[in-house]
Amino acid sequence: MLDASWFTEQVPDAGSAFSLKIKQKLHTEQSPFQYLEIYETESFGNLMVIDGCTMVSTRDNFFYHEMMSHPVLFIHPDPKRVWIIGGGDCGTLREVLKHPSVEHAVQIDIDERVTRLAEIYFPELCESNNDPRAELKFIDGIKWVKDAQPNSVDIIIVDSTDPIGPAEGLFSEQFYRDCFNCLTPNGMVVQQSESALFHLKLIGEMRGAMSRAGLSHLQTLFFPQCLYPSGWWSATIASKAPLASFREQECADKAFSTVYYNSDIHKAALAQPEFFKQAMTAESV
Amino acid sequence: MLDASWFTEQVPDAGSAFSLKIKQKLHTEQSPFQYLEIYETESFGNLMVIDGCTMVSTRDNFFYHEMMSHPVLFIHPDPKRVWIIGGGDCGTLREVLKHPSVEHAVQIDIDERVTRLAEIYFPELCESNNDPRAELKFIDGIKWVKDAQPNSVDIIIVDSTDPIGPAEGLFSEQFYRDCFNCLTPNGMVVQQSESALFHLKLIGEMRGAMSRAGLSHLQTLFFPQCLYPSGWWSATIASKAPLASFREQECADKAFSTVYYNSDIHKAALAQPEFFKQAMTAESV
Repeated sequence: MLDASWFTEQVPDAGSAFSLKIKQKLHTEQSPFQYLEIYETESFGNLMVIDGCTMVSTRDNFFYHEMMSHPVLFIHPDPKRVWIIGGGDCGTLREVLKHPSVEHAVQIDIDERVTRLAEIYFPELCESNNDPRAELKFIDGIKWVKDAQPNSVDIIIVDSTDPIGPAEGLFSEQFYRDCFNCLTPNGMVVQQSESALFHLKLIGEMRGAMSRAGLSHLQTLFFPQCLYPSGWWSATIASKAPLASFREQECADKAFSTVYYNSDIHKAALAQPEFFKQAMTAESV
Repeated sequence: MLDASWFTEQVPDAGSAFSLKIKQKLHTEQSPFQYLEIYETESFGNLMVIDGCTMVSTRDNFFYHEMMSHPVLFIHPDPKRVWIIGGGDCGTLREVLKHPSVEHAVQIDIDERVTRLAEIYFPELCESNNDPRAELKFIDGIKWVKDAQPNSVDIIIVDSTDPIGPAEGLFSEQFYRDCFNCLTPNGMVVQQSESALFHLKLIGEMRGAMSRAGLSHLQTLFFPQCLYPSGWWSATIASKAPLASFREQECADKAFSTVYYNSDIHKAALAQPEFFKQAMTAESV
């Protein structure tokens, strides 16, 4: 039994729950889009919760933000223009801007309040927000992609909440078609794709939709993420062109620091667990 | 807030907790060594809890049992004799006996009640207990190793509870010295080594003790384990002789099935996260 000094996220479908011990509640608000909560935890630093789901903690966000950005950026041969759909806490933007090849990175999150709260409670994630290459837009990412010009972006990072509520449309075949249309010929999408232990069916459906939209070269990556259901998370890269092996030497020689990611971890994240391989082969995705 | 229909394990040092929704309590008892509980969960099958810590669930034990056995067995050039210290649920024994090279596997768990309960509530983990190569002993594993003859075992798998209570001595330099003495020249220990996110200091100390005991060729492996603190677990291999690359072709051609492990996952598990590499280099272990 946990008393009121804990924040708990239940995962009803999985019959599991993860809790963090709280020192104090720092902020709550209902934005036009979501219910936002900020806590100071005992051991994980600050915690942001959106609609009851843990989103980001000071202590362990590095896994997610590094793995949503560096693998795809080191797989793409020359990433110059990057869009981040969602990602309002700015942690992915910070990682993207560590790559010197990137000339322009646009973060498109529908909810400005997420970013304003991140600036206060996760300032380290926002430290590159004033980089001249960075642009922050607070509009609907689905509409942004739909209205974009062809050939206008190299990498689209879909750093969204779960596929319910505002993020639902980000997991649809129509969205991936719109991505396909505005990507350059070597263009790639990478999207957070939940837990392979808890959401295998969702990953299969998502890969199917990506593939039907023409983003048919797929690679799902696996990494730990303590805060998220099952503690084990994934991201799926979907590419127009066949996925080349990554720019390993440039990764090994990178001039920026990371906490989890390195070139060995890059290759490790590509390994497909046996049950995952079998499930995806069965569905041919 | 979680009501009484949940089993929760708190991790006080980490300020976190993991919970599983329970259908019913199936059994509790105080053995001579530990307090044992068995639950039927809503989505994880049966659950064994020892002294308040989640030990094994029907649904997700495959990660741990496969990663405690197959990597070390495919790294050792010719494993014939294997001891499992702890491992009373018999899941590691089952995986070890999938290797045709193994001639004799001894499981040495101090608490016979763990095995008797596993036979009832986790029969699938016990399906190889009657293999003619298997031997089950219910005695003190520390004393067993201390009293063993030199050159009598190829691999010692330390499949223990956390380093408090009965398992504490299994994390000591003296224990590793005793292991060194009874291992063959290519001999190896593999031991569960907790979470790199929560227990980095412990892993460093353990590697230091192994190294000082002469088991100086070290390799820590990483894998998901939803049920354990942080959802991300590790095992550390400590070898007398330099670690060769593994028998990859034999792994790829293996005649038995696994759920998580395969040759790509083997290589992936060897990748050292950046913060881990830096911490171990700093401590020279």
